[in-house]
Amino acid sequence: MAIRLVAFDFDGVFTDNAVYVFEDGSEAVRCFRGDGLGLQKLEQNGIKTIVISTETGRIVSVRCKKLGIRCIQSCDNKLEALETVAKENGLSLTQVAYVGNDLNDLPCLKCAGLSMVVKDAHPDVLPYAHYQTKTLGGCGAIREICDMFENVLLLNRK
Amino acid sequence: MAIRLVAFDFDGVFTDNAVYVFEDGSEAVRCFRGDGLGLQKLEQNGIKTIVISTETGRIVSVRCKKLGIRCIQSCDNKLEALETVAKENGLSLTQVAYVGNDLNDLPCLKCAGLSMVVKDAHPDVLPYAHYQTKTLGGCGAIREICDMFENVLLLNRK
Amino acid sequence: MAIRLVAFDFDGVFTDNAVYVFEDGSEAVRCFRGDGLGLQKLEQNGIKTIVISTETGRIVSVRCKKLGIRCIQSCDNKLEALETVAKENGLSLTQVAYVGNDLNDLPCLKCAGLSMVVKDAHPDVLPYAHYQTKTLGGCGAIREICDMFENVLLLNRK
Amino acid sequence: MAIRLVAFDFDGVFTDNAVYVFEDGSEAVRCFRGDGLGLQKLEQNGIKTIVISTETGRIVSVRCKKLGIRCIQSCDNKLEALETVAKENGLSLTQVAYVGNDLNDLPCLKCAGLSMVVKDAHPDVLPYAHYQTKTLGGCGAIREICDMFENVLLLNRK
Repeated sequence: MAIRLVAFDFDGVFTDNAVYVFEDGSEAVRCFRGDGLGLQKLEQNGIKTIVISTETGRIVSVRCKKLGIRCIQSCDNKLEALETVAKENGLSLTQVAYVGNDLNDLPCLKCAGLSMVVKDAHPDVLPYAHYQTKTLGGCGAIREICDMFENVLLLNRK
Repeated sequence: MAIRLVAFDFDGVFTDNAVYVFEDGSEAVRCFRGDGLGLQKLEQNGIKTIVISTETGRIVSVRCKKLGIRCIQSCDNKLEALETVAKENGLSLTQVAYVGNDLNDLPCLKCAGLSMVVKDAHPDVLPYAHYQTKTLGGCGAIREICDMFENVLLLNRK
Repeated sequence: MAIRLVAFDFDGVFTDNAVYVFEDGSEAVRCFRGDGLGLQKLEQNGIKTIVISTETGRIVSVRCKKLGIRCIQSCDNKLEALETVAKENGLSLTQVAYVGNDLNDLPCLKCAGLSMVVKDAHPDVLPYAHYQTKTLGGCGAIREICDMFENVLLLNRK
Repeated sequence: MAIRLVAFDFDGVFTDNAVYVFEDGSEAVRCFRGDGLGLQKLEQNGIKTIVISTETGRIVSVRCKKLGIRCIQSCDNKLEALETVAKENGLSLTQVAYVGNDLNDLPCLKCAGLSMVVKDAHPDVLPYAHYQTKTLGGCGAIREICDMFENVLLLNRK
């Protein structure tokens, strides 16, 4: 059954898992400009996208807004959020791909139809991934995944 | 016919294609100090320079102002912009070099007299490039290109 | 005798030993998001944690507050601070691990029961370390240490 | 004749030659925390230090103030500045070391008693350097140089 929704963790996937900390307590993260073109392609191919993050800061929503992608944050139970999103879209979890990088992604990685982790994911999540990206989180991993979906879809249409 | 104008994409060429995202939605990018000396040499050798970017933020114009290089931004159709700039300078596109890194640079890369991409350009643009830099975008790629033009010009004068 | 407290240097251990300097004199550092999950595990396993730093800026306390870890900063004599903390917790230094990266960590590294340094520590401190992390400071070194403690504790419980 | 003064370029030597550019036109740079301990050793060994930079922004002076090192900036003629500083200290240029990374350092590198460049210096300055650091600019190059001076001085005292 084809993947119809891709859910992404934010830190370590959209970013290199670094956080820049300022004297006033504010934070910044490092994202990858090339992700935008990739996410546009997913949407054009009819694959929905969403970000699910445990982080509470405003950065997640700020970045997702710029990319035009929906986000759920301050999320204690990622799997519950993933199931809700799937249901809202009339999908089963087998039609959902999840992209993560660390232990708090395990419940989603274990249940998603397609489980993906970034190249620099924590070693303990690797056994649960169907696919590990060749590029690092925040440095092209999102784009690689978007390109992969497009290439597969193009092949299927031929 | 000699190159008389070099047009550069901004993100991924002047930068490492990363964007730093802050809580208030503002952004920052990482550029390379050594680019300034290179661009000065181009100008001294009578080669005009311009930046053409699709990005809408103020960073592009801010950086270009510091470097003393003209920029066109919020640009939906880069090839149209490139053709306009060439015409303004009384040049044909065969006298223009274009430096890019991603799919939205393809129309310009296909039409420019000299097509150049950075070392870490998206794989899909590599087949359209006459030259790929040895240095990464934002980490010396601009300088490498400027140095190359100077070395070629010096050889021609001998 | 088992380790009951882990004391960390901040710069070079929680960070990559870089400091971002702004025009107004303010600073920022780059930390690793994955450290949070690791430090939580240490606490759950009954191992106390503390940061001891010579730096005077607010960044250390800001980051430690977010991670929920106690910190002592503006600290001229790290060994004295370490001894005080050990005493407060009813521990001898043999029950304390210390993680550092540079010459000003030497007194603590020489006295702690378990001396640990990051992969990119200054060469002159390496001879005094029982363990050198495989990951770089600010890029997973803290997490590696936390994971190691958990793995050892899990083994001991079997 | 022993070196009594070390003059440093700033960008590319104290930094990795990157500049972070913000929307409001302000800038930031990335420095190395370990430089502070190194520069203290130089001073303790009676070797004076100074920074000579062409950059006009406030970052150079802000960073030098924190490190307790004198700086001359907005400097169009670095060699003139170097000669003035040498004279003020009653030194000839043969007693001065200069550390640089790019073409605008060439006049100083050619005249200093000891010419040093960072590992990632521009290729065109390498032929003029007596010593090239093993570490990259902004990532330990300053510290490596300070350590080297101390090691040589310790040997001489034996």
